Amino acid sequence: MTVTAQLSISLDGFLAGPRPSLDDPLGQGGMQLHEWAFRLAAWRGPHGLEGGETGPDSALVERDLAANGSFVMGRKMFSGGAGAWEDDPNATGWWGDEPPYHAPVFVVTHHARERLDLQGGTSFTFVTDGVASAVEQARAAADGKNVSIAGGADVVQQCLALGLLDELTVHVAPLFLGGGTRLFEHVPPGRLEILEVVDVPSATHVRYAVTR
Amino acid sequence: MTVTAQLSISLDGFLAGPRPSLDDPLGQGGMQLHEWAFRLAAWRGPHGLEGGETGPDSALVERDLAANGSFVMGRKMFSGGAGAWEDDPNATGWWGDEPPYHAPVFVVTHHARERLDLQGGTSFTFVTDGVASAVEQARAAADGKNVSIAGGADVVQQCLALGLLDELTVHVAPLFLGGGTRLFEHVPPGRLEILEVVDVPSATHVRYAVTR
Repeated sequence: MTVTAQLSISLDGFLAGPRPSLDDPLGQGGMQLHEWAFRLAAWRGPHGLEGGETGPDSALVERDLAANGSFVMGRKMFSGGAGAWEDDPNATGWWGDEPPYHAPVFVVTHHARERLDLQGGTSFTFVTDGVASAVEQARAAADGKNVSIAGGADVVQQCLALGLLDELTVHVAPLFLGGGTRLFEHVPPGRLEILEVVDVPSATHVRYAVTR
Repeated sequence: MTVTAQLSISLDGFLAGPRPSLDDPLGQGGMQLHEWAFRLAAWRGPHGLEGGETGPDSALVERDLAANGSFVMGRKMFSGGAGAWEDDPNATGWWGDEPPYHAPVFVVTHHARERLDLQGGTSFTFVTDGVASAVEQARAAADGKNVSIAGGADVVQQCLALGLLDELTVHVAPLFLGGGTRLFEHVPPGRLEILEVVDVPSATHVRYAVTR
């Protein structure tokens, strides 16, 4: 079982653009970070869309999706900006009735809340005692498969600081966002090992082992 | 003729570590960014060292070195921290009597100074009217070959902001520095095109075209 994270960033290191909002959750230009994925059969299928390209990047996504047994995410990634959902106990965040995870998701939050079970096998469990606890619960729920840290940046950074991450895949989109939320801020110094590079025109995909 | 830059950065985006000093110009841990190069025959030769590994990364370095006809660098890259050399008109910065450039180098500075001609074909010309002028002078001196923006980060960022850069190669070393000087801060948003990826265990080398 591996604790991993797969994240799309710009060459200047941002995983979201400037000025994110409820209408524009990835910030200015941020949607471009994921264009490489939107074209792929492996991404379109789980999101209920037909067709798409196949190739080494689609194979990478397909393999990661099959390997991930559970997910951990931050509260803002679940529900967006300033606490709208705390006022609405039935809110399902961005994710609608059938989120694309098809697996248990553990949301790190300060606000206790009942577990949500949605269509397609996605559940959201709200964890109020920190990232390490969320990862531990996700491990137990992963059924021997991998735990994927879905984001945002602060949760990934906490996992790196706590030594909880085994692997990390960055999808580096060939663009500058110029500002926004950086994936890597104040991470502990240390060496990584390059495990795999997928070199396609739409992005450069690099999988690292995180040494501790 | 192409205006290009080849820079080593950590996965968290730093081209120098925290707390650089005259004794430790690359900052804490910063020397690790260049370990991939120190092993290579293509790097060792121009630095007066024998032996070294060959392979696709050495071929990349060899090709870039042969293609570069002149260089542009910032004043701190020439001479280190707080203005020591302005007090000593004969100071040659970090670079000793035979710098590894073997070509004309244009130093962007606020302080006028006579051109220095050193052994092995390296000259340092001090340009006081800005980065664009330095690039223009470097173009004229490149004898039809490429102009390489050697650094530091501020000079690369100015070139990006002014639209002066045609290509950019990043050598991404598999490590986190955790802090230091970022290569990409406040660069103008825009798309890049991936021209080439060299995938070796010691670093991931990606060459981009900068679209304007």
